[in-house]
Amino acid sequence: MWCQSCKEEYEEEDAGTCKECYEEASETEEELKREIEDLRSRLHFLRLPSPTLDAAAAPHADLLLHAIPSCSGAGGDGDAAAAAASSVRAPETPAVPAHRVILASRSPVFRAMLENEMEESRSGIIKIYDVSYDVLRAFVHYMYTAEALLDEPMASDLLVLAEKYEVKHLKAYCEKFITSKVNNDNAIAHYAFAHRHSAKQLLEASLSVLMENMSTLADREEYKELVEKDPRLIVEIYEAYLNRQVNTAAGKDTDCCCRK
Amino acid sequence: MWCQSCKEEYEEEDAGTCKECYEEASETEEELKREIEDLRSRLHFLRLPSPTLDAAAAPHADLLLHAIPSCSGAGGDGDAAAAAASSVRAPETPAVPAHRVILASRSPVFRAMLENEMEESRSGIIKIYDVSYDVLRAFVHYMYTAEALLDEPMASDLLVLAEKYEVKHLKAYCEKFITSKVNNDNAIAHYAFAHRHSAKQLLEASLSVLMENMSTLADREEYKELVEKDPRLIVEIYEAYLNRQVNTAAGKDTDCCCRK
Repeated sequence: MWCQSCKEEYEEEDAGTCKECYEEASETEEELKREIEDLRSRLHFLRLPSPTLDAAAAPHADLLLHAIPSCSGAGGDGDAAAAAASSVRAPETPAVPAHRVILASRSPVFRAMLENEMEESRSGIIKIYDVSYDVLRAFVHYMYTAEALLDEPMASDLLVLAEKYEVKHLKAYCEKFITSKVNNDNAIAHYAFAHRHSAKQLLEASLSVLMENMSTLADREEYKELVEKDPRLIVEIYEAYLNRQVNTAAGKDTDCCCRK
Repeated sequence: MWCQSCKEEYEEEDAGTCKECYEEASETEEELKREIEDLRSRLHFLRLPSPTLDAAAAPHADLLLHAIPSCSGAGGDGDAAAAAASSVRAPETPAVPAHRVILASRSPVFRAMLENEMEESRSGIIKIYDVSYDVLRAFVHYMYTAEALLDEPMASDLLVLAEKYEVKHLKAYCEKFITSKVNNDNAIAHYAFAHRHSAKQLLEASLSVLMENMSTLADREEYKELVEKDPRLIVEIYEAYLNRQVNTAAGKDTDCCCRK
């Protein structure tokens, strides 16, 4: 008989669906495609012009964000004295313009900062510590567009920033990207990173890779460093490994019992 | 043989697809569903809290929009003198708060108004003429959420407003809704409305319904009204009808030639 989809002949043992189900599936596919079209058009409408791309796109900006990289010697405290000092010390990189309504709607941390009588709300100047200018720009760009151009370092830096300002959507977006890059070479580093930033999906993915390569784990340089720095994390890897072994053994036993 | 989708038996003449195509289609469906999930989550992120639902949701509002219904006697000119007068006459309905950055990004008309030194930009007060308070609220709500609860009168009023302020996405959204409601009873009204507001999809849909009911067209009250008010529109209906008849006849002739 003939396949209605690829138009080729096939034998009975290669049969897929009946005509009715084929037609239903085609309709479903069309419906899903229409829904995607509709969602894309709504996204395009809701997407805002990013003030990071073009200063002229931010004529109503009521905030200026300054990136203070960790190497600049500034602390991460963000207190009023430091804020006052910033008006004297010229920032090394240009400020990134933004709008209160956008930052407040995307981040509960910015919302609290801007809706209470805090220094940042009064001055309209927010200093973002321990971050490079490029990462800050990407962060602000995401707030307006829900889009980011990622590589691994950018995804890690943005995840940290997203966690700090509680931008859940961006954190999940970065975590998904990093998770897709986990391999045997970087699994220890990603495992430790995921631990520090409560990234559950990344933690599970890197733990899974580590457990598949337990025989070479202790030879790795990153392993030795982590033993020095945070041995509890190493303990957790061993615990997870042992747990899995016990479960696998129990599974086999049950399997054996069932077969008896 | 057995259908892999509904699990029921079927005969050869009811065959749909081969196994390979069935599996490919299932994968495609899964992919489309994942894409929908992703788009929905991005939409949820980009959607802004509507200032029309809760005044507390608009703490950084820098605009106030006033609905001036056409029955209030105000003109539709929006000139400076009328704007000045508004500060004396208290508005009858509450103002709708909004943000410059949002209105400017959704509408080129608001953008021009707010980015040039116009009265509205200076005062932060925009009067929206010939519109009810409810329609204005729905209009502003859409600017923040890309969502509107429509019935036919609301869709018509919003379409007019969307056309005036060049909010293409909202205009298309309303037009699609009204088009889905076209029937023999309202086709003349919708046809005239579509003409006035350059709504091509609605125009074609109502014209199509009208042409299917040409024999009763001239008996309708709305027809007689339109002949009085704008006879050119009636002429266009007849022209389209004649055109279709000629094309159908030509099609039949070609059909005959081909068969010879």
